[in-house]
Amino acid sequence: MIERISILGTGLLGTSVGLALRAAGFRGSIVGWNRGVEGARLALEAGAIDAIAADPLQAARESQVVVLAVPIYATLDFMEKLAGVLGPEHLVTDVGSTKGKISEAAERLFNTPERAAFLPGHPMAGKERGGAALGDAELFRNRVWLFTDDASWQRSAQAAELVKEWREWVVAMGSKCIDLDPARHDELVAWVSHLPQFVATALSALLEETVGDAPELKDVGGRALSEMTRLGASPYSMWRDIALTNTEAVQATLLALELRLAHLRENLRTPELREEFEQANKFRRE
Amino acid sequence: MIERISILGTGLLGTSVGLALRAAGFRGSIVGWNRGVEGARLALEAGAIDAIAADPLQAARESQVVVLAVPIYATLDFMEKLAGVLGPEHLVTDVGSTKGKISEAAERLFNTPERAAFLPGHPMAGKERGGAALGDAELFRNRVWLFTDDASWQRSAQAAELVKEWREWVVAMGSKCIDLDPARHDELVAWVSHLPQFVATALSALLEETVGDAPELKDVGGRALSEMTRLGASPYSMWRDIALTNTEAVQATLLALELRLAHLRENLRTPELREEFEQANKFRRE
Repeated sequence: MIERISILGTGLLGTSVGLALRAAGFRGSIVGWNRGVEGARLALEAGAIDAIAADPLQAARESQVVVLAVPIYATLDFMEKLAGVLGPEHLVTDVGSTKGKISEAAERLFNTPERAAFLPGHPMAGKERGGAALGDAELFRNRVWLFTDDASWQRSAQAAELVKEWREWVVAMGSKCIDLDPARHDELVAWVSHLPQFVATALSALLEETVGDAPELKDVGGRALSEMTRLGASPYSMWRDIALTNTEAVQATLLALELRLAHLRENLRTPELREEFEQANKFRRE
Repeated sequence: MIERISILGTGLLGTSVGLALRAAGFRGSIVGWNRGVEGARLALEAGAIDAIAADPLQAARESQVVVLAVPIYATLDFMEKLAGVLGPEHLVTDVGSTKGKISEAAERLFNTPERAAFLPGHPMAGKERGGAALGDAELFRNRVWLFTDDASWQRSAQAAELVKEWREWVVAMGSKCIDLDPARHDELVAWVSHLPQFVATALSALLEETVGDAPELKDVGGRALSEMTRLGASPYSMWRDIALTNTEAVQATLLALELRLAHLRENLRTPELREEFEQANKFRRE
């Protein structure tokens, strides 16, 4: 039975995990740590955590489950440090948006019978702005929580039990668990998550430069403009590590879209345009 | 006082105009015509029109205000026909998404003291699917209704009065009127409306081809994917005339975005990425 959880990083996702666990009926203790103390204080006030830890490694040692909810490189740093202080009575899991590097580190540092378990996770949930203040117990409701766990066979029975229980809590938070190979994960999210983000960023940046100072702009743009640029508000700090850890896959999707836009541009006056619309319509069909 | 209005084309926009006029307190008669009789019947059942006209030109002659709510080339056809049968006791207005060709035709065919008035209009409202069944009295609430009227000085007092009254009804339907030069209109909407649509179409078509058959796809894609591809459902029939009548402006925006995406792709691992995100953030700042 999981009775002690520590959440390292109480930003949007970490705070939401704490709130969602409570809403799902988790009655054990939840300790939080955040690099900036303000984020930890907000998470505490929101009821996402019971206490603020001064030392994240000590908090981890005193927990059965450690949730890493920090950017990807910070996750990789924590993995190095945690591997040295935790044992098979611990499960570490994360919420990072790319899984290749994290799965490599998990194989190298965790998941033997003598070591702590590491379950690479990725809830497909978020908001265009981060921070504990936006934490939301319903963030994971009807979302998918991806796992790229290729080490289950190597774990101790104790660690395997923790993994099983954590997956049950993920379901209790409202998510559907899907397992993917790490490389397949990174390729798929490049298409369905990273590409949409980078398109919104490029479109928003372009519009800011070309029509950002048009006085009519804010009035004229309707729902279409608002939707297609909402993710333009996403901060660099949230996406830098994704760009750095999934570079090739994202580049391939961006290049493919550039070619597709060029094709459309060259065919605005030909019957090809109809085919492009029909292909797009198919994607949105139930 | 406007007492008789005919709506030629009772699709999404035409039906919504009828419903919004009624909601705003218009008590005169509204006659509707639609190329397909089913659309007219739906508009009638919804209360958007009081009667279905068999002959659109006769319905126009018997009205003070004629609202053209058909695709752009159909609007241009109607303008040719209506110019021959209407006089200064009539106002014709439209809801077309590009205004260059329509404004040219308006100058050539309307807006002298002896002729009917033509007020080129463009409500910045719509849905990704069309049809009378989606008609909505609130469609124009808090939206902008653009006008590209450069002929006001040439009209008879009677026609000018109709224009003034129609603008008041537009405000009563919940919209804010903004006046633009036709060329400026077409350039601005290329950026804030047509580019977002064509990007969504290209992105949706690309995703359909690359990951459309991935069984995990529908589950994995979150709100970001759903928003960035919602407009992928827009039908070709709605956009063909826009592509044909605003080709150069749209091509310029597409080319600019292609270059912007290439720049981003080449800088996923450099500090330029930060600048791109910050520029995008500015666009979304209040």
